[in-house]
Amino acid sequence: MAEQPVLLAAVTLLSALHLGYLAGRVGKARKKHTIVPPSVTGPPEFERTFRAHQNCVEFYPVFLVVLWTSGIFFSEVLAAVLGLIYIYSRQMYFDGYTVSVKDRMPGFSLSIGLVFTLAGLGAAGVLNGILDEYFDINVRKMISKW
Amino acid sequence: MAEQPVLLAAVTLLSALHLGYLAGRVGKARKKHTIVPPSVTGPPEFERTFRAHQNCVEFYPVFLVVLWTSGIFFSEVLAAVLGLIYIYSRQMYFDGYTVSVKDRMPGFSLSIGLVFTLAGLGAAGVLNGILDEYFDINVRKMISKW
Amino acid sequence: MAEQPVLLAAVTLLSALHLGYLAGRVGKARKKHTIVPPSVTGPPEFERTFRAHQNCVEFYPVFLVVLWTSGIFFSEVLAAVLGLIYIYSRQMYFDGYTVSVKDRMPGFSLSIGLVFTLAGLGAAGVLNGILDEYFDINVRKMISKW
Repeated sequence: MAEQPVLLAAVTLLSALHLGYLAGRVGKARKKHTIVPPSVTGPPEFERTFRAHQNCVEFYPVFLVVLWTSGIFFSEVLAAVLGLIYIYSRQMYFDGYTVSVKDRMPGFSLSIGLVFTLAGLGAAGVLNGILDEYFDINVRKMISKW
Repeated sequence: MAEQPVLLAAVTLLSALHLGYLAGRVGKARKKHTIVPPSVTGPPEFERTFRAHQNCVEFYPVFLVVLWTSGIFFSEVLAAVLGLIYIYSRQMYFDGYTVSVKDRMPGFSLSIGLVFTLAGLGAAGVLNGILDEYFDINVRKMISKW
Repeated sequence: MAEQPVLLAAVTLLSALHLGYLAGRVGKARKKHTIVPPSVTGPPEFERTFRAHQNCVEFYPVFLVVLWTSGIFFSEVLAAVLGLIYIYSRQMYFDGYTVSVKDRMPGFSLSIGLVFTLAGLGAAGVLNGILDEYFDINVRKMISKW
């Protein structure tokens, strides 16, 4: 890891702006279908757009957690690259969902796969950190020795 | 605090996976009651399950903030233990809510109590940090001297 | 930046408690209009209150990201001050929205302006960090030399 995790910060900032952009897309869908707030119901296309954003919001903190744990405790570069693909997968999901319920799936499956991958890397890194910190066992060093 | 806050990272990762698991429970409830997205309405049991997850999502960033401020500025071990109980309280809340509206309360009250406890510890730690950093007053040292 | 970012931690803790307070306001609106969970529909005043909170929740992680990236990589004091104004803008938004749909706009516009300002500062800081870390170009030093 670099002294300051600048790559993680860059991907995180990008992901936050992307989520803000998706919120803006819901705003545009409101105007297109003249759905006045606070209503969140309307024609199917609007409801799909609304739910697409909601789902991205629901998963966003989970994404941030797995991005940073894997980035800090496993590999910053790898986490940053997977994080960029996650942003892309969420765009795929959102665009697909606005077209049809079925078309949300490719992006969704990719995003879930990335969350699990990042979570796995993060878990490996954090476990290594706990073993090192509290049990004085450094798995990485052992592996590199072998 | 340890050099790297590995315990906080471990509890955070666990809490994120737990939130993902609850999202999966909503997905299962969709299948059980054949509620096709983007619809979020249906029989009471489905709506309770859906709202249970939503409430967990709404409180999740609040939880992360109080977990980390108390863990970094007060005590990592204490925050981590309370964080684990918070995850348990959210499971209690979720399971209770799927049974009945009333059964959500024990888990909910416990989770809110934990948020306030962590927030109190965090506030004490951060205040101590500000006094130390900007006013050169170290309350902890003064207490340990007495 | 201070050794520990205590000001960012203080503003973050305050913002989390504020979000919890807004959740409590929704709870009070439920009691006032006797809307039993999991229902989220009812008279317009309740629905506006509910959506006001939801919108604050949707933007909260975005706010945290831009607060911390600008605070760590640009200026902690500036980010903390803008963060405090953001909390205030969200209170304005919430209070306005409970009165009427139109009255939510001043607070909303202010909050969005703050998010973009913080994002701009964060992007500048992170870019500088990447140039410094990976290309050995320190823009800040170059500016202060000139």
